[in-house]
Amino acid sequence: MLALEPLFSNRRAMVEEYISHLLLEETIPTHLKEAMRYSLLAGGKRLRPVLCLSSAQLFGGEEEDILPFACAIEMVHTYSLIHDDLPCMDDDDLRRGRPSNHKAFGEATALLAGDGLLTEAFALMTQTKRKPALVLHAIAVFAKAAGAHGMVGGQEVDLSFVGKTQVSLDAVKTMHAMKTGAILEASCTTGAILADADTESLAAIAQYGRELGIAFQIVDDILDETADPAVLGKPVHSDRDKNKATYPALVGLDTSRRLAKEHADRAKKALLSFDAGADFLRALATFTVERVS
Amino acid sequence: MLALEPLFSNRRAMVEEYISHLLLEETIPTHLKEAMRYSLLAGGKRLRPVLCLSSAQLFGGEEEDILPFACAIEMVHTYSLIHDDLPCMDDDDLRRGRPSNHKAFGEATALLAGDGLLTEAFALMTQTKRKPALVLHAIAVFAKAAGAHGMVGGQEVDLSFVGKTQVSLDAVKTMHAMKTGAILEASCTTGAILADADTESLAAIAQYGRELGIAFQIVDDILDETADPAVLGKPVHSDRDKNKATYPALVGLDTSRRLAKEHADRAKKALLSFDAGADFLRALATFTVERVS
Repeated sequence: MLALEPLFSNRRAMVEEYISHLLLEETIPTHLKEAMRYSLLAGGKRLRPVLCLSSAQLFGGEEEDILPFACAIEMVHTYSLIHDDLPCMDDDDLRRGRPSNHKAFGEATALLAGDGLLTEAFALMTQTKRKPALVLHAIAVFAKAAGAHGMVGGQEVDLSFVGKTQVSLDAVKTMHAMKTGAILEASCTTGAILADADTESLAAIAQYGRELGIAFQIVDDILDETADPAVLGKPVHSDRDKNKATYPALVGLDTSRRLAKEHADRAKKALLSFDAGADFLRALATFTVERVS
Repeated sequence: MLALEPLFSNRRAMVEEYISHLLLEETIPTHLKEAMRYSLLAGGKRLRPVLCLSSAQLFGGEEEDILPFACAIEMVHTYSLIHDDLPCMDDDDLRRGRPSNHKAFGEATALLAGDGLLTEAFALMTQTKRKPALVLHAIAVFAKAAGAHGMVGGQEVDLSFVGKTQVSLDAVKTMHAMKTGAILEASCTTGAILADADTESLAAIAQYGRELGIAFQIVDDILDETADPAVLGKPVHSDRDKNKATYPALVGLDTSRRLAKEHADRAKKALLSFDAGADFLRALATFTVERVS
């Protein structure tokens, strides 16, 4: 089995390097620019763009050609974190060990920084150096996953759970599939689309992304219960404090761990038809359940 | 000179009909769906999509092919109104004579309705029935106009004026050019791009859109001072109450009226090289300064 490193770090460094040059133009008002870059350059695993690059590379796509699209996905992820932290949403003061965007720049600018990142993401996607029909297809798939049918809708469902005493595991699964899973899946599928993968391969990589997304979210819930806050970079027990319906709350920690491993295994199983070129994605599935932050 | 009607009403009706079928899918959470449709279907002039359709038609584009893109522009406009009305921004309780989105659906859902409309707009743009390279070009131009360099940036500049006693006319012009002008200009240029207009024509139609945008904004400022609130559909004097730097506040009503007419004339002058096919756009420039709501 391929080790995750140094490939993960290399791809992550490509993403960091690329986004460090974004949003520097004079035409963006200074305060807004600082707010957008503050959150975009705050570190993090860069899992979504790495997934996009890795999936593209599996089908022969050149990382450099796909990089604008991959980094645009990270911009969309960043906007979602900024808006999720706002007082009218999760009202979180900390993100990645630093003040959340609205704590650092004020609520109005944080709202606009999110709006700006989401919009600039689509502008950046159009700069992807692949055939226009492929880029357009990838934008269509990604926008669907990020919007009201996917991530934004999932956030609305999550809000609807607040204050409810009885939320079923099925309801939580649906919410996670929309809120987190859709974007992780789309990170994989858009990479494959941009690399012009055939329909059968697209279905396989979508299945991989979907299962990986569930595993990832279960582990997120587990870490909120068990992690060292210094390693996690944010306060733990925030879900429990907010009385959120999580996997550990619903089925306990042991079952949660077993389920996470099962979904990661299913993710790897979806890649059965691929050769060693998919080993990095297999290693990533293993990492997803073994991570500590 | 061509009369604005019945062409304006016809195009507006095409837009109303098309958007009435949007965002009905079961996969959107009900409360979110209602919030998105509440604002999208709240009426209004539909000026931006009408501009896009009219500009496309000038260069031989079929209205039906362009309609998804034109309606996506209206979705972006709608999201910007929802977010602008939020308590952390302009804190407006009324919009088009009804409770603003957050008053009707709560702040969190209003935020998500805006995010959802913006994201779904880009999904819809990809459905435009024109050559992928043209659609991609139009998305790139529109996203630039709607983002941190344009509309979102202009909103940040507008916020930076709050509480300032001395704001220059030049600063107000720049703010308007970003906040309102960029999208009006892009509504015209994307229509032309989608109809595969040549570079020279694109420059002319961009100039038209830019001047129209300035005229439009000056008249907006004037109407806030002088309009009948029942006709305008929102409270008047809201700018003055918020101590906003407007054209009437800076140069008086008479000069504002003269400037609006001058910019509308310049918009028409930009169309000099076009034949009677551009008469509708000429009539639209006249309407912009003569409108009462």
